[in-house]
Amino acid sequence: MTPDFVVVKVGGSLFSDKSRPGSLDQQVLRAYAELLAGLVARHPGRLAVVVGGGAFGHGAIRQRRDDDAFGLVALTQACFTVKWAWTEALRAAGVDAFPLQLAAMCTLEQGVPRACPDVLLGLLGRGALPVLSGDCLLTTEGELVSFSSDRVPEVLLPVVPGRMRAVVLTDVPGILRDGRDGGDVLAEVDAHDPGPAYDLLWTQSPWDSTGAMHTKLAALVTCARGGAECFILRGDHTVADLDFLFAPTADLPAGLPRTRIAGVDAAAAA
Amino acid sequence: MTPDFVVVKVGGSLFSDKSRPGSLDQQVLRAYAELLAGLVARHPGRLAVVVGGGAFGHGAIRQRRDDDAFGLVALTQACFTVKWAWTEALRAAGVDAFPLQLAAMCTLEQGVPRACPDVLLGLLGRGALPVLSGDCLLTTEGELVSFSSDRVPEVLLPVVPGRMRAVVLTDVPGILRDGRDGGDVLAEVDAHDPGPAYDLLWTQSPWDSTGAMHTKLAALVTCARGGAECFILRGDHTVADLDFLFAPTADLPAGLPRTRIAGVDAAAAA
Repeated sequence: MTPDFVVVKVGGSLFSDKSRPGSLDQQVLRAYAELLAGLVARHPGRLAVVVGGGAFGHGAIRQRRDDDAFGLVALTQACFTVKWAWTEALRAAGVDAFPLQLAAMCTLEQGVPRACPDVLLGLLGRGALPVLSGDCLLTTEGELVSFSSDRVPEVLLPVVPGRMRAVVLTDVPGILRDGRDGGDVLAEVDAHDPGPAYDLLWTQSPWDSTGAMHTKLAALVTCARGGAECFILRGDHTVADLDFLFAPTADLPAGLPRTRIAGVDAAAAA
Repeated sequence: MTPDFVVVKVGGSLFSDKSRPGSLDQQVLRAYAELLAGLVARHPGRLAVVVGGGAFGHGAIRQRRDDDAFGLVALTQACFTVKWAWTEALRAAGVDAFPLQLAAMCTLEQGVPRACPDVLLGLLGRGALPVLSGDCLLTTEGELVSFSSDRVPEVLLPVVPGRMRAVVLTDVPGILRDGRDGGDVLAEVDAHDPGPAYDLLWTQSPWDSTGAMHTKLAALVTCARGGAECFILRGDHTVADLDFLFAPTADLPAGLPRTRIAGVDAAAAA
């Protein structure tokens, strides 16, 4: 398929060291900001960026006390801090970027995100770049729950126009057959039969000790079942451009390892 | 009238010195947080707080460059910082407070705010306290414009259930007949005939050099025409409680100076 809209998620591990509170690699932010500026210039209103929580998000979740159900509110501030750092880097690169607090525009109903899209669509309509992240969301039962940045494409899917591609940039080149430091990447996941991919994660669990890849796979399977074409690949801020994100599936760089997750429809559209 | 819902706005001048960047009086925040905690305990789900931008908001507006229409985005971060400071103070006082980025949930259509109320109503439904503020809002024409915290009650009016009272706490006791340091407070403004009140602001302009009282009056006249009962009064964090905010109009403390702005309906309901 050729995407009409791309949502790119930049994993926290690419720009923040979880083990160091407040860690933010400004050089990496600047590099990604330049790359995203190029994309926005060529595809205005057709891109959204989602940033991982890095040290900020994990810190907020770790510090929560068990007896304080509402303590998760700290996550919304932590995520806003990260979004603002990205917004500043993007603005320095000439992008009309705008940070959006997901918790203010989205609730969870039986686990399914329900977003109010007005502001997001307004920003896209004027060619601006929405900067999104995970957050703590209120459920219809009145609970605050953590909502992974990997699931944000799921929020956008019913909202943005046309065919959506979701690309998750992380610190591994995809779902691996041979462990964390391996290079044997599972190329395709059928969203309607993801069992084999889950099996790989179970048997290779040491390289996914936090379950992060599990979360990504589940989120992207949901998106793909909804019609999106999804990719997991290694983020690299030193590339010349990210134009391939908007390329037709058949034209993606042959040498670029990635795991593609799509349904039958997306495959046919390719 | 007896309000079903109260939105209380705490003016920035009460807790922040505009002339000092980053100014935030934590002692005042703590005192208000305790007062608001009492109100939430007695009226769960029937209160929202709006905080002024203080030094943060004014700094963000001042620093904007004329050639950078999107530069106003800094206001959303500045306002979030203030909301978070209030959220922390309120949480320390035992309140389930949650900061909401207005810019993520509200657009302006021909100057009229259109909000997505799901999260706000969800928070109220579980007895939590939404912490709101002014912000930069996206218009349907794709512009970013500054939206005063004084206008936030206007956002809530069509959204919250029942009869709404909007109370603006500021550093003067109401609209004054005899200048800034005077004590002759205009007691009543008929929302359907606010001319005399505007006249007072024009002739007494030296005490309203920033036009702040103009903004308040215009915002509250709009609210009152929509059925709310509105007050402007001096904020005092040293009082024993703020229970009078929920009192029937007739039972408000006789000795408390204030300007009341209401339409005929609200007057009849009183």
